[in-house]
Amino acid sequence: MKLYVAPRAPNPRRVRMFLAEKGIDLVAAGIALVDVDLNAQEHKSEAFRAKSPLARIPALEFDDGRVLTETRAICTWLEGFCPTPNLMGVDATERAFIEMADRRVEWYFMLPIGHCIRHTHPGLAPLEQPQFPDFGRSQGEKMLETAAWLDRELQHQPWIAGERFTIADITAFCALEFAKLMRFSAGEKGFFALQAWRDRVAGRASAGVA
Amino acid sequence: MKLYVAPRAPNPRRVRMFLAEKGIDLVAAGIALVDVDLNAQEHKSEAFRAKSPLARIPALEFDDGRVLTETRAICTWLEGFCPTPNLMGVDATERAFIEMADRRVEWYFMLPIGHCIRHTHPGLAPLEQPQFPDFGRSQGEKMLETAAWLDRELQHQPWIAGERFTIADITAFCALEFAKLMRFSAGEKGFFALQAWRDRVAGRASAGVA
Repeated sequence: MKLYVAPRAPNPRRVRMFLAEKGIDLVAAGIALVDVDLNAQEHKSEAFRAKSPLARIPALEFDDGRVLTETRAICTWLEGFCPTPNLMGVDATERAFIEMADRRVEWYFMLPIGHCIRHTHPGLAPLEQPQFPDFGRSQGEKMLETAAWLDRELQHQPWIAGERFTIADITAFCALEFAKLMRFSAGEKGFFALQAWRDRVAGRASAGVA
Repeated sequence: MKLYVAPRAPNPRRVRMFLAEKGIDLVAAGIALVDVDLNAQEHKSEAFRAKSPLARIPALEFDDGRVLTETRAICTWLEGFCPTPNLMGVDATERAFIEMADRRVEWYFMLPIGHCIRHTHPGLAPLEQPQFPDFGRSQGEKMLETAAWLDRELQHQPWIAGERFTIADITAFCALEFAKLMRFSAGEKGFFALQAWRDRVAGRASAGVA
């Protein structure tokens, strides 16, 4: 298998962190990493679009030629490939509540962070055209509401989805790491529980994968 | 159980269409529908935020007080509650590929449609502040790229995820119905396979649920 990734991009990092939390050894699992050069627009090339028609990374190419894209869908496949430790729920009810937590982080935290950075950061101009800086700054304000909510959650539970580490922690951590590009620091904003959680995650071996 | 919905909003419609495709009778299943008045900002009230902290609908409240939000997470729970007909995949591999299709529709079709309408339509001003009309129009252009890709897909496969009707068809149909507010018609844009698929879905009993 081939896993198409890009250094510093938050979504490939989510999959790599998921793999690391599973303890999956890439060589033993037969997964080769392939870097895609986003700044050179390699993801929009005809060759890459033949694999990922909407020009998105990460993408997991199977040996039979099928290609699976979308971070969370790749994680769903990996959860079946390597069921332990469980990161997405052991039955439909737990899967649903973890999916809720993961989606809240993805849609109301990672998405506005991404919008803010892509629409305001000069370095992201090659990837986001046209940029709308006023919209981006407004999204930067909206992510603070979700950060405040996450901070309240983490005052009474250790992990984003509740009592154990799940995929939602990976999504939130990678979003927060990406938010460095908008100079966001949870601690500096007074979100101390969010900062403490972030530091706990940063101490895991999987956090070193980037 | 209580299912919090709002007339004409696309996400509650997705859950109701999913219920209808499952053949779940709401009364027999013990699910009461509760309308939330979005224009009166009822979703942002303290009472509703006690159930759905990020002020989102739909929300499914269980009899024990737990509340599940996020359209797709509610569908995941319903898939476990009522496994047939299967709409989200029978094993991890099929679940992953259907999730990929569903996410492509959600992120690259429904999201830009939502952005376009929320940032340009005067009727959505109460729900989206501040509005950025130039950004909204740009998103209206971007959704056309996904529409063109969906049209190509549907020239060689009957349903969004492949050979059978799945949750991805529900997401795409509800997105397309919502796109009427931006006066988008697949047929008028020359996306004839997308239009024919849309008309096939519109003929299903579940499409009448709004």
